[in-house]
Amino acid sequence: MSPESLPTGLAVRLASRTGALTTVTSGLAPTHLQANLIVLPSRYASDFRLLCARNPVPCPLLAESSAPGSFSTLTTHLLSSTGTPVAVASDIDLRRDAPAYRVYRDGKLVSATEPKDVIPEWTEDHVGFLIGCSYSFETALTRAGLPPRHITLSRNVAMYRTTVPLCAAGIFAGGTYVVSMRPYRPSEIETVRAVTRPFVQTHGEPIAWGWEGAKQLGIKDISKPEWGDVVLGEDGETVFTEQDEEFVPVFWGCGVTPQNAVMMAGLEGTVMGHAPGYMIVLDVREEDVFGAK
Amino acid sequence: MSPESLPTGLAVRLASRTGALTTVTSGLAPTHLQANLIVLPSRYASDFRLLCARNPVPCPLLAESSAPGSFSTLTTHLLSSTGTPVAVASDIDLRRDAPAYRVYRDGKLVSATEPKDVIPEWTEDHVGFLIGCSYSFETALTRAGLPPRHITLSRNVAMYRTTVPLCAAGIFAGGTYVVSMRPYRPSEIETVRAVTRPFVQTHGEPIAWGWEGAKQLGIKDISKPEWGDVVLGEDGETVFTEQDEEFVPVFWGCGVTPQNAVMMAGLEGTVMGHAPGYMIVLDVREEDVFGAK
Repeated sequence: MSPESLPTGLAVRLASRTGALTTVTSGLAPTHLQANLIVLPSRYASDFRLLCARNPVPCPLLAESSAPGSFSTLTTHLLSSTGTPVAVASDIDLRRDAPAYRVYRDGKLVSATEPKDVIPEWTEDHVGFLIGCSYSFETALTRAGLPPRHITLSRNVAMYRTTVPLCAAGIFAGGTYVVSMRPYRPSEIETVRAVTRPFVQTHGEPIAWGWEGAKQLGIKDISKPEWGDVVLGEDGETVFTEQDEEFVPVFWGCGVTPQNAVMMAGLEGTVMGHAPGYMIVLDVREEDVFGAK
Repeated sequence: MSPESLPTGLAVRLASRTGALTTVTSGLAPTHLQANLIVLPSRYASDFRLLCARNPVPCPLLAESSAPGSFSTLTTHLLSSTGTPVAVASDIDLRRDAPAYRVYRDGKLVSATEPKDVIPEWTEDHVGFLIGCSYSFETALTRAGLPPRHITLSRNVAMYRTTVPLCAAGIFAGGTYVVSMRPYRPSEIETVRAVTRPFVQTHGEPIAWGWEGAKQLGIKDISKPEWGDVVLGEDGETVFTEQDEEFVPVFWGCGVTPQNAVMMAGLEGTVMGHAPGYMIVLDVREEDVFGAK
């Protein structure tokens, strides 16, 4: 389906809900926030909420089920630019509104195929969580004349496991930050920081940059991301490495962090999430949340 | 002055304000929250606020000047156990209510003596910030039969610089976590975590533990803290080292972190803070903030 035929978050959700939408959501419903989904048994909900509160940069919690079992009524944690709570979406079904899902049982992926809904898996005991996503600040970077290279080259962003510990929260102990990386010139970094700084509920400004930053994060080989695509040089052909004379890596907290922490925690029971790239698109628009103060 | 003669936060603040109190505040006004103070030129205030928002575990922001220059009217960020804002103190003067202060000019400590007030330094452009302190959870640990060793031995807690990067925020880039350490038996750690977990606005549960945790934080020699006193063995005579067969180190985010980040940022102008150990004691009581939900 073309981006033009899905101009709003609701249009994308309805197309997902009816099964019409089968692609990733990148580029759909421009200016509408997109969210990562994690669904947990209720006994893990308070620890997960605490994990997000203690690690808001990689784990920005936007909203959650208003009660265990609820898939269409959400409690929002999203604040407007003036500090008042903003409902993320009015007609939503967490079981069907991502175009594709993943299901884990006792910490293991259930099947290689990605179901179009999780209606059979969802129980009265499940709590859904929506986590902010970096698409918002990527639009802002593009508008500022600093488009991320993976967008220019139509690839997925590169993501890396780091050695930076998350602040432990109950059962979620021992996790580390996952970061996304976009290469920029050293002279561009202060502008890149300033452009992404206001997006406090979708990772905000970078957490580290430069080759020294990569080292501090414990990233040994920039050419080997754990998720997403290998980053190419500006020519779109060679691989981006430390030998690059013009660009350095810039790292942001990444929404894969909470998923990774959940997978590492060895939870019992059924856990669900959206399939990577197949996000839940919200009604809220960027200007509602990241407008001038 | 005896703890009995200063039973409330206001009593401690008035004794500081009049110059009668000249000791550290540890043990005074039991169950009242104590706070770290940082005072910055207003042009750094929004970056500092962002630093706290992005790093809430080591930098829990409790309250700040309601406007530049204000030392007696505060905007609170402290929430009650039911989620409503709680005023931290009704009769307060940030310039005089700590028993002793430190003053820095262009990043350098102004003098070796610690003034009893900062009235001559405070300008219409200064913004004061109050940061949570670990005294609250230490009382809770003691009540749970797990008194921190430095309390039992009447010493200062040991604090260490780590290699864990803070999430950058504007001018505050390149900082790292500072942690406090208290030794416990491995069998006690889950209880220690559970007891300190509710104290979300004063560092909460530990961020790492065990010798593996020390390594992950980049702490090479546990016998050499950067601040506070060397930790002794349970006998109170030997020094606590990795050779200890019964106890392991447990690490919490520490309120020295924001001070350290401020010192590292190379700020221009006059910066002030309380002298270490000489805190500002608040009206709010632990049960107002950390009560049952």
